[in-house]
Parts: sequence; C-alpha cells; structure tokens
Amino acid sequence: MSDEHQKLYGQLCDHARRTALVASIAEILGWDERTQLPPAGGDYRAEQSTYLAGEVHRRWTDPRFGELIEKLLQTPLAADPGSGSAVVLRRLKRQRDKRMKLPQTLVEELARTAVLGQQAWEEARKRNDFPRFQPLLEKMIELKRQQAAALGYPERPYDALLDDFEPEERTANVARVLSGLREALVPLVAAIQASPRRPNSEILKRAYPQAAQAAFGRAAAEAIGFDFRRGRLDVTAHPFTAGLGPHDCRITTRYDEHAFNQAFFGTMHESGHGLYEQGLPTEDYGLPLGESISLGIHESQSRWWENFVGRSRAFWQHFFPLAQRQFPEALQDVSADDFYFAVNDVRPSLIRIEADEATYNLHILIRFELELALLEDGLKVADLPGAWNEKYRQTLDVTPPRDADGVLQDVHWSAGLVGYFPTYSLGNLYAAQFFVQARTDLGDLDAQFARGEFRPLLEWLREKIHRCGQRRTASELIQDVTGKPLSHEPLMEHLRTKFTPLYGL
Amino acid sequence: MSDEHQKLYGQLCDHARRTALVASIAEILGWDERTQLPPAGGDYRAEQSTYLAGEVHRRWTDPRFGELIEKLLQTPLAADPGSGSAVVLRRLKRQRDKRMKLPQTLVEELARTAVLGQQAWEEARKRNDFPRFQPLLEKMIELKRQQAAALGYPERPYDALLDDFEPEERTANVARVLSGLREALVPLVAAIQASPRRPNSEILKRAYPQAAQAAFGRAAAEAIGFDFRRGRLDVTAHPFTAGLGPHDCRITTRYDEHAFNQAFFGTMHESGHGLYEQGLPTEDYGLPLGESISLGIHESQSRWWENFVGRSRAFWQHFFPLAQRQFPEALQDVSADDFYFAVNDVRPSLIRIEADEATYNLHILIRFELELALLEDGLKVADLPGAWNEKYRQTLDVTPPRDADGVLQDVHWSAGLVGYFPTYSLGNLYAAQFFVQARTDLGDLDAQFARGEFRPLLEWLREKIHRCGQRRTASELIQDVTGKPLSHEPLMEHLRTKFTPLYGL
Repeated sequence: MSDEHQKLYGQLCDHARRTALVASIAEILGWDERTQLPPAGGDYRAEQSTYLAGEVHRRWTDPRFGELIEKLLQTPLAADPGSGSAVVLRRLKRQRDKRMKLPQTLVEELARTAVLGQQAWEEARKRNDFPRFQPLLEKMIELKRQQAAALGYPERPYDALLDDFEPEERTANVARVLSGLREALVPLVAAIQASPRRPNSEILKRAYPQAAQAAFGRAAAEAIGFDFRRGRLDVTAHPFTAGLGPHDCRITTRYDEHAFNQAFFGTMHESGHGLYEQGLPTEDYGLPLGESISLGIHESQSRWWENFVGRSRAFWQHFFPLAQRQFPEALQDVSADDFYFAVNDVRPSLIRIEADEATYNLHILIRFELELALLEDGLKVADLPGAWNEKYRQTLDVTPPRDADGVLQDVHWSAGLVGYFPTYSLGNLYAAQFFVQARTDLGDLDAQFARGEFRPLLEWLREKIHRCGQRRTASELIQDVTGKPLSHEPLMEHLRTKFTPLYGL
Repeated sequence: MSDEHQKLYGQLCDHARRTALVASIAEILGWDERTQLPPAGGDYRAEQSTYLAGEVHRRWTDPRFGELIEKLLQTPLAADPGSGSAVVLRRLKRQRDKRMKLPQTLVEELARTAVLGQQAWEEARKRNDFPRFQPLLEKMIELKRQQAAALGYPERPYDALLDDFEPEERTANVARVLSGLREALVPLVAAIQASPRRPNSEILKRAYPQAAQAAFGRAAAEAIGFDFRRGRLDVTAHPFTAGLGPHDCRITTRYDEHAFNQAFFGTMHESGHGLYEQGLPTEDYGLPLGESISLGIHESQSRWWENFVGRSRAFWQHFFPLAQRQFPEALQDVSADDFYFAVNDVRPSLIRIEADEATYNLHILIRFELELALLEDGLKVADLPGAWNEKYRQTLDVTPPRDADGVLQDVHWSAGLVGYFPTYSLGNLYAAQFFVQARTDLGDLDAQFARGEFRPLLEWLREKIHRCGQRRTASELIQDVTGKPLSHEPLMEHLRTKFTPLYGL
C-alpha cells in the first residue's frame, strides 16, 4: 500500500467528514426548529435549512470527490471487502451515485418544503384542519415522485425511497415480511380482545406531575446508560432523537400529567436511539464506519429499551419502588403486578406512538399501504383522510373522531419521510430476534434487570451492533449476530410469552 | 438609472443577504452553545462554528462581490449619499475592505479560539481557576494583536478593534469622553457614599421563586413591546441577546431566587436589545439598511429600558402592585417608595452587570484601561488578575475575594471581544441624551409609564433609531436626533436628578 494511496484516502476522508460537519449543522437547525423556534421564525428557517441542504449536496456531488472514490476503488485499499477502507469506499460510492442522480434544485426544494411542510402540519394538527396541510402535502408527494423517478429503482418507485432509510431493502420483501407478521398478529390481538381479563389502566391516568415525570424519565435514561455529558433531554410536540455531533445527541419527549406511558416510554424509546448514537465509534464520526446502518436497526435499539427492557416485569421489579417514591399520590395503593399489567394493556387505539406492543405494527401496516397508494397507485391527497379512516376501521375497528387523531397524527409525510414507516416494524422484528440472542449470550437478563443492572446488556449492544458502524448491512448484521435471516417469529414468540399469562390465553 | 445597474445591484444585494443568512446560522450555533450545548459537545461545536466563520469570510472576500461593489460605486446608484443604495454600497465597501485585510486562517483561528475560549472561561469561572483560562486568553490576545496589525489603524492598535463594535469611533475620543465622565462621576459617587441615607436593600434578597420571576419578567418584556411570536426568553450563565433571523430574536437571563434585580433588570436590559432587533426593517434584513448601527447604539436601547424606564419611579407606580401580587411573601409589607429606593441602591461593588447606574461606568473604565494595557502596553495575561484587583481597589475601593468575582466575571475577552467594553459606556451616554429628547417630544412620559403605557415611547424609538438601520453613523444619529454631539452631561444630569432627592444630597 503506497503512501500516495494513503494520502488520497486521507483527502477522501477529510472531504466526507467535512460534509458530515455541514450536515450536523443542519441537524442543529432541525432540532432547534422542533424544540425552540418562535412561531414567526419558520420562513427564514426554511431558507437557512435549504442553504445547508444545498451545501451538503454540492459536497456530495463535487467531481473531485467522485474522482477520488473511483481512483481509490482501483487500489489495494478496496481489495479486502472487510477492511475499513473498503467499507468506506463502497458506502461512499453507493451514496454518491444516488446523490448524482438528484438535481440540486430538487434537493433544495425538498429541504425547503420539508421545513414549511412541518410547520403547516403542526398548525393543521393543532386546528384539526387537514385542508390547511393538503397543498403542502400534495407538493411533497409530487416531489417524492420526482425523487423516485430521478433515482430510478429495481422494481417499483417505492424501492427508491425505501432505500434512503433501509439501504438495499426492497418493497416486495418488506411487504412479504409484514404480511407474515399481520397473519400471526391478527389472531393474537383477537384472542386478547376476547379475554375477560383487563388491566386497571386508570392507574396510568392519575396525576403524574410533569417535574416528577421529567426527573423519573431522566433517572431511567441514566440508569440504562444514556450519557448526559454527551446529550440532552428536551420537550417537543413530536418526539425525536437528533445527533448534532459526535458528543452531542439530543433526545426529546412530551408530557401529559395524566398519562404516565407517554413521556416515560417515549423517553425510554428515544434513549434507545440515543444509546445507539452514543455507541457509534466517535473516531469515525462523519465516515460510514461511524454511522448507523439503517433506520430499521436504529429502531431496533429504541424498541429494545422501550419494550423488551422497559415493559418487562423484571425492569419494574427494580423501578416500581422508585416510581412509588416519585409518584406517591398516584401509586401508593398500586401493586407492582397491577402496574406491570397496566403498562402492558393491549387495546386497539387511534394513536400509533401510544399503541401497545401487540397492535403497534398494525398501525405501521396502514401507513405502509397508504403511502404505497399515494406514491404508486394514484391515491389523491384530498382522499387521504377518508382512506385513513377506512383502514383504521377495517384493521383496528376504531374510527378517528377527528383528523388530528387520525391522518394528522404523524409528522413524517410533512417532512418528506415517505418510505420511513416500514422501518418501524422492521425495527421491532430486529429487536426481538437480537433479544433472543442476547438472552442466550448473557444468561439471566431478568435477574440483572431486577437488580437495576443494564451495563452488560448495553455492552453487548455496543459490541455486536453499535461499534460495527456500517461495516455490515442490516441483513448481514442480523445473520451475523443471530445466525438466521430476519423473521417475524421471534417477535410473535415474545408477544405470546408475555401476553398468554397476562390475559390467560 | 439603467436596468443593467438595477440588475447588478440586485445581484449585490442577493450576495449580501446570503452572506447574512450564513452568519445567522452561526448565530444559531452560538445561541445554542450558550444555552443548550452538552458539556462534551464543545470541541466539535468549535469546528462547526469555524466552518461557518470561514464561509462567511469567503463570501465577503469573494472577488466577484468586490467587483460588483466597485462597479456600482461608479453608477448613479451611489450618487446621492442619502439614498438607500448609496448607504448599502458605502457600508458594504467599508466592511469588505476590512475583511480583505484579514487572512482566512486568522478568521478561522479567531472563531475556533472564541468557542474554545468561552468554554475554558466557563470552567475556570466555575472552579475559580484563572490559570486554567490563562493559555487560551494569551492565545486570544495574541490573535487580537495580529488582527489589529492586519487591519491597520489611524493612530493606535486599539482603534482597529474598537471599529468592529463602534464603526468610525476612535480610541482617543472614547478616552476623552470617558475621562470627562469619570471626573463628574467620582464626586457624585463619593457624595452618595457620604450620605447617611441608605435603602433597605434586604427587600431584594428575600425569596423570589424562579417561576414567578420568569412570569413577571416575561410580562414586563411583553408590556414594553417585546414580541414573543418573533422571539424567546431563555436561561443562560452570562445573559445576551442573539438575532437568529428577521423574526427570531432571543433574549436570555439568569435567576437567583434571592436576588430580584439580577433577572428582572437583566430581562429589561436584554429586552431593550431585542426591541432594537425587532424594530429593524425586516425587508432589509441582511443589508446594512436592516442592521444596527453600532454596539454603542445597541447598548443605548438596552440601558434605556433597563434604567431610564425600568428604574424610574413612574415605572414602579404601574408595576409595583403587580410585583406585590406576584411575590406576596417578599413584598407584602413593602412600600412602593422603599422598593423604588432599593432598586436604586448605589454601592460600589464587584460585579459589573449587577452594578447600579452611578458606579456602572467605573467598571467599564477599569476594563477599558486593562484591555488597552493588554493590547498595547505589554501587560501580561499572567499579571491580569493582580492588575484587575489593584484597579478595583483604586477606583471602587473594593477587592475581589476570588478571581471568579473579579477578572473571571465577564465572558468578553474569552470570546475575542476586545474593544467592546467602552461601547457599554457610550450606550449609557447615548441613552441619556436620547431620553432628554424623547421627553421633549412626547410630553409627560412619567404619566404614561404610571399608566403602563410604553407604546408611544417605543414608537419614538422605532421612528428615530430602529428604522434607520445603518443610514447614519452613531455620531450622525445623535446629532440628528438631539441636535448636539455626544456629551456626558445628560447622563450626569439624569443621575443627579435621580439621586439628589433619594440620598438627600
């Protein structure tokens, strides 16, 4: 390996890291927009974000950057496909080839419309006024069609968009996996519905003062390993996690003083995303080796801590006494068993992010089908609220009383995140399959949780997943870690094991 | 005026506005750094800010931008010196000529050192550990010497730095004005010190719960006209105001539950800065016509609302009953007169931003002399704490018990703001002189304040000062608005009128 090759490779990495630096500034603006921005500041923020999106795109499509990649792909640095340099070159080439197909104007228009769209969505949701949002959503769907056409696709337009969130995944495969999941889920949900047993869910609607919720959520996030020296927890309308730099990961939540689950499991969920971000190799920040694999893998980390840990009986063996001290009024007369059952209440409902583990993926299926219809089958945006309500009636037997609790509940489409939703379900499946392996590798996890010990589990994730960066694709990773391809069975097994005793099935 | 000229002028304005857009992104990062950034995020934030400072500089020094300015200066658009286009061309040329003298590397090194310096300062202040800060301050002073040398100066190096904050002002003139002020101030402060009368300042150290302080401060800011749809109020360690866009102005304060003055007058002060920012012509955002004149004029606006309004008897005629309702425990047994005297307690003290109206400018004089000595007379950074303490002993007859209350109290030098301090005193002088004119123009201001009416006063500022943008220099403005050049007499008159009856002088 010559010094000349090393020098060129250094230049390549410098370029990529600097592009990531500009992208991280855009992340700061996005975080600020969703947690801080004064109402009148939206239009100018759109211009600021558009500028940065344009700069990022310009750097990706810089011809000298392309020449460096192509030249280095012919050198020994690309020879061993498992080497760090080969991974970097392969992933950068893949990403750049996609970027090269997108016109600069489309990239900037997408960025601008995403900021304005989110603002219109937020107003529309607040006022329960879908028509206010409709023109911007129409524009966004049209831009996404243009994006898919520009990128090209192996089988169908949705493939092109899905690839942004779950690289190398295909629509047909996602549809197959999710349809298998649906077939297994529907009878389980029906059996639970038919059970005469019901948790006392009123427990969770008692008074939980916001300050106490914030302190309790923060303590739980710290207990599972979130590093507040390298991160923050803030309030927002639609919770998310943002990576603003190698040592600056910000999670968010929202509080309702009469809904324990929302902020607590939301905080656990976003902490899971945050732990992944904080576990990526910081020395490779800005290179594929320091970046997350896919949104599906990212979601596996959030659902892991939210559900597989946070909704387990063992977790509450440790945390319930602390919760009782933090919320004496609400929980004084409640038993740990009743509380555990209450946080595992299965009930078809309207709001995805508040859904239980069993029905959650049915919400995703609805969105997946609707965005396929919008993108490929000519479903008109004007007809979306009706289609949404119809799907909810068919699938979950509930009907939103108003669009704010229906088609307006999610931020994603307003921000141009079409092709994103199925990664939530993939994440649940990944998480379940990884968790089986963790139990095999680490022994009695429940005993550890009951003692408040989460370090071994986090170390396992660090070693198996976080430190991997993008050395593997999602499907390679699941095969490597668990020895099997992705299946819906581990998730179904997890759900049956949990709910059979709770509901006496 | 030809279409061709208009077209070129449009290109010029587009370029300038886009540069301002990039600079506004840097402001977002700066605000975030000082209110939000996790402790470990500092190093990467320095890189992000350095990148943006470099981009801003690159845009200013872009040769095509220079050609546009020079070409347009030869056209009718520059002919009438009072026209908007002539102002734009003149100010942009002046700013660009300065930028052209600064090497890109120096600009980036200054930006990086400013972020790292502020972090080192914050740690050093927290730990009362000047030596921890010393190396970064030494580096910064050296960079400021390089900056002054690169820029050149009419008489002395300090002129070059002063010009960044108070364009076209000279060190010698500032020294002359401040020395006149000192001569008049010292006997007044001595007379007050000799008076047997003293306010009951214990009133202000009672319990003022933070939430009530925040609500009261916000209500006052709203009452004087701060628009929260276009701004925010947040908490920070060292309060400041930041303009993040034409409709996004953020003020900050800090709370001590046993010090009423700190947050309240801090909020009034920053609101004054915010009102100026919010009053600039938004259609000209990013052009000199939409920018503030100087930091001295900016400070005149903050001191205006903090002192000339906020510390007036008439203001408290309206606000004291509201304060009593907001802080019943602390103020139940207090009379409006006693409260008014307490917020006007004159007492030589250690901390500049908590100083009273009479002694405040003595704090500034100390800093002005010290930074002159650092920059021009070879005072070593290592000797700065001793020099600081000696000046405080001589000037105010107090000695800081520790550096955290002495030389480490201000953020400025850590951020490279050398040449900034004298603008605080200039601001006090401008404010006093403007205020005399406002009383002449608007009649009985006290009666308006007592009714809680601040709109006419704000409208007066909007018309006379805010909407002017940079159409005038600071010295042109004071002459235009008041018919006289700047003098220390109006401020002294204001202080004598206020303190003679209070202290029975």
